[in-house]
Amino acid sequence: MPNFKIILEYDGSDFAGWQFQPEQKTLQGELERAIKRTSGEKLRVTASGRTDAGVHALGQVVSFRTDAKLDARAWHGAFNQYLPHTMRAMSVEEVPEDFNARFSAKGKQYEYIVINRKTPSAIRRNYAWHVPYELDYDAMVEASKLFIGCIDFTSFSATDTDAVTFTRTLSRLDMERDGEQIRFTFVSAGFLRHMVRNIVGTLVDVGRGRIAPLDITVILEAKDRKMAGTNAPPQGLYLVKVEY
Amino acid sequence: MPNFKIILEYDGSDFAGWQFQPEQKTLQGELERAIKRTSGEKLRVTASGRTDAGVHALGQVVSFRTDAKLDARAWHGAFNQYLPHTMRAMSVEEVPEDFNARFSAKGKQYEYIVINRKTPSAIRRNYAWHVPYELDYDAMVEASKLFIGCIDFTSFSATDTDAVTFTRTLSRLDMERDGEQIRFTFVSAGFLRHMVRNIVGTLVDVGRGRIAPLDITVILEAKDRKMAGTNAPPQGLYLVKVEY
Repeated sequence: MPNFKIILEYDGSDFAGWQFQPEQKTLQGELERAIKRTSGEKLRVTASGRTDAGVHALGQVVSFRTDAKLDARAWHGAFNQYLPHTMRAMSVEEVPEDFNARFSAKGKQYEYIVINRKTPSAIRRNYAWHVPYELDYDAMVEASKLFIGCIDFTSFSATDTDAVTFTRTLSRLDMERDGEQIRFTFVSAGFLRHMVRNIVGTLVDVGRGRIAPLDITVILEAKDRKMAGTNAPPQGLYLVKVEY
Repeated sequence: MPNFKIILEYDGSDFAGWQFQPEQKTLQGELERAIKRTSGEKLRVTASGRTDAGVHALGQVVSFRTDAKLDARAWHGAFNQYLPHTMRAMSVEEVPEDFNARFSAKGKQYEYIVINRKTPSAIRRNYAWHVPYELDYDAMVEASKLFIGCIDFTSFSATDTDAVTFTRTLSRLDMERDGEQIRFTFVSAGFLRHMVRNIVGTLVDVGRGRIAPLDITVILEAKDRKMAGTNAPPQGLYLVKVEY
């Protein structure tokens, strides 16, 4: 049975999250509807992971198996015809039958964008987190280094999660300041639910002076979600790519 | 009578352009409505220039004279309370009585963003022009240099315009490529209606090989709008700042 891999870009502000929900415009729902319109099949698609409402993707990966006599090029055309304009198939390719967008993933890259200035942005209101406070950027960079390595991230996980273990290896957490924008880049073989948003929110709390950089170690050791800082809002988060 | 200068950021995709039109959501209309809600006054505001539907601003400048006993800080707060979220007052300051956002302007800077790749962007669909063709970037840069200087831009003006003379001095036209994005920066003491969009569209035609770089000189000399290339769409255009 042919198996296909799609790379998707989407504007999370147009959707109630990834997962199918009746009566709601979800990314999974729109994708499965586009498949039904194309081949008549009622399929389930598998994403590398769900994204919450408001979270964007530049390179979400999805796989699906189909009986239809359509090649990758035909699927690609069909998706960009039937999907909403806020969701675009960047590529479609046929992959070996054992490929699974979720279980075959070897790592992911996320970015998070903060706009740090007094007035909110009219243009980027759905595409970044507006932080109006003065931030101590150097303190944030110092704190960010304490998240690198193989660490128990219980304190930075959502409480409602299916995760069994909370140890993850964050191989990269870069910060880059460009005028009023701060861009965070995260790379890991695996992330916990809300992990990126909880880390960014906590780093902003460090920037505001509400948490000292060295307290990060204490928070990590506590293994208690209530110890970490703010959960940064979804609209600043981008799933950039998935490695296989 | 106190005179105020506002610097505005706005998301042009939410408005039917700058100019007041009954029954339409326009930038001027929303601003005048916010003034009425604040001080009860029915005023006319003056922008540095109108922007068309879909065109964005990072630093549009507007001035208005008022009898109300409110200082700049109070107006600033009122605007960001009453204006739609797609329109933000970056600053409000009191200015000398003879300041006029339109007639006092000494120059403007615009940017235009092209996304050059096969698939349209889901996220930036309203914030850039999607050009799916392969472009000869070097030819575009060569052609862009022919627009610099004191030139008769009749061929690059809208036909419906109040302009009396068509000679303008373009002091800067920079191009910068960053991955799939091309950013054009324009600086001039004055622009004609649609001038930036007509130049960008023509440069893209050069990139596609439909116009040779040296033909730009011929097109300029013809002083005929029909000679120039495509008019680039509004959603890629940003009014960045106005100099006084």
